[in-house]
Amino acid sequence: MSGRFITLEGGEGAGKSTLLAGLRDHFEAHGVDLLLTREPGGTPLGEAVRALVLDPALRGVCAEAELLLMFAARAQLVREVIRPALAAGRWVLCDRFTDASYAYQGGGRGQPETRIRELERWAAEDLQPDLTLLLDLPVGDGRARAAGRGDADRIESEEDPFFERVRAAYRARAAAFPRRFRVLDAAQPPERVLADAVAALAPLLQAQAR
Amino acid sequence: MSGRFITLEGGEGAGKSTLLAGLRDHFEAHGVDLLLTREPGGTPLGEAVRALVLDPALRGVCAEAELLLMFAARAQLVREVIRPALAAGRWVLCDRFTDASYAYQGGGRGQPETRIRELERWAAEDLQPDLTLLLDLPVGDGRARAAGRGDADRIESEEDPFFERVRAAYRARAAAFPRRFRVLDAAQPPERVLADAVAALAPLLQAQAR
Repeated sequence: MSGRFITLEGGEGAGKSTLLAGLRDHFEAHGVDLLLTREPGGTPLGEAVRALVLDPALRGVCAEAELLLMFAARAQLVREVIRPALAAGRWVLCDRFTDASYAYQGGGRGQPETRIRELERWAAEDLQPDLTLLLDLPVGDGRARAAGRGDADRIESEEDPFFERVRAAYRARAAAFPRRFRVLDAAQPPERVLADAVAALAPLLQAQAR
Repeated sequence: MSGRFITLEGGEGAGKSTLLAGLRDHFEAHGVDLLLTREPGGTPLGEAVRALVLDPALRGVCAEAELLLMFAARAQLVREVIRPALAAGRWVLCDRFTDASYAYQGGGRGQPETRIRELERWAAEDLQPDLTLLLDLPVGDGRARAAGRGDADRIESEEDPFFERVRAAYRARAAAFPRRFRVLDAAQPPERVLADAVAALAPLLQAQAR
């Protein structure tokens, strides 16, 4: 059968990396052939774009260029990695995807939703995840956690109002697509977040096992 | 008064660099405050994108990603360099601009014209040159000249049919916008090409002098 496409979304310090590690173990225990990838990145072109778009030295990057760079990396990732993996029956777990552009470049930077939607259609082939896990956390809590990590990248260096808009846009996406999204309370201990994520994934894994 | 925006277009080996040097001297002799820039490039972001998009090691870059990268560099160049220079009354001479996307990503790679037009509108602020000089040359002649230069970049490494489509798209642009375009016969000796370019620029320079 064809694979499943799962995405993980959330703001800074929401615990994505910890959850990704837990999910990888969970899928392995279930014998699922999982491909882990990330955005921007996941291809040689995408990783180069990632280095560029997150470079703290490039302070004056305009919102339009940022949006276009994110979709350049995404266009390549969809065609080079995600589509072929899904076609081969693999599961794909992607650390951020198009919802992140609606949240960061849309909510955060004010790029119009219609513009992002149009890019999603042709650059990302309108690829939609089967399930999106959104790690939701008050902005102050996430930033306090992220602060312990050392140097912030260009986007992490934004101010709180930016991240409030990002969070609001993520929550609006979840409300608009309730069948695809599961909002996880990222203020819980990591093991509880993982348990909620595993519960959200259970129907897909059961369907796979049948 | 506000500055003028001149672009120089043409395929591989058409003599753009030689003509640029000649035009720079010509503008200097006329006391015009000229800003020379290029695409992709012209800003720290744009030059990094240029290195990426021309990297011969990145063979599998999809046409969509290439188009988006070109417009990311262009979005930044318009806002960071070209608009401010024109507003300050400077002349801007740009080695390739949006016509190159119609020619290379449109004609060459088959990206739809409507898609490029839409990106031109919002990413490039629909900025149109006052004058576009197109160096036109049969593909075989241009490639023979370019072959003497050493290692070809990723786009220069395409086959002849690609460059035939690029040339046809450039000529179609010139036919569609006859008031903006001047097609220069690049098979002529360099001094004749420069003389034709200078003649094409004369009305703009005369208007400036008044």
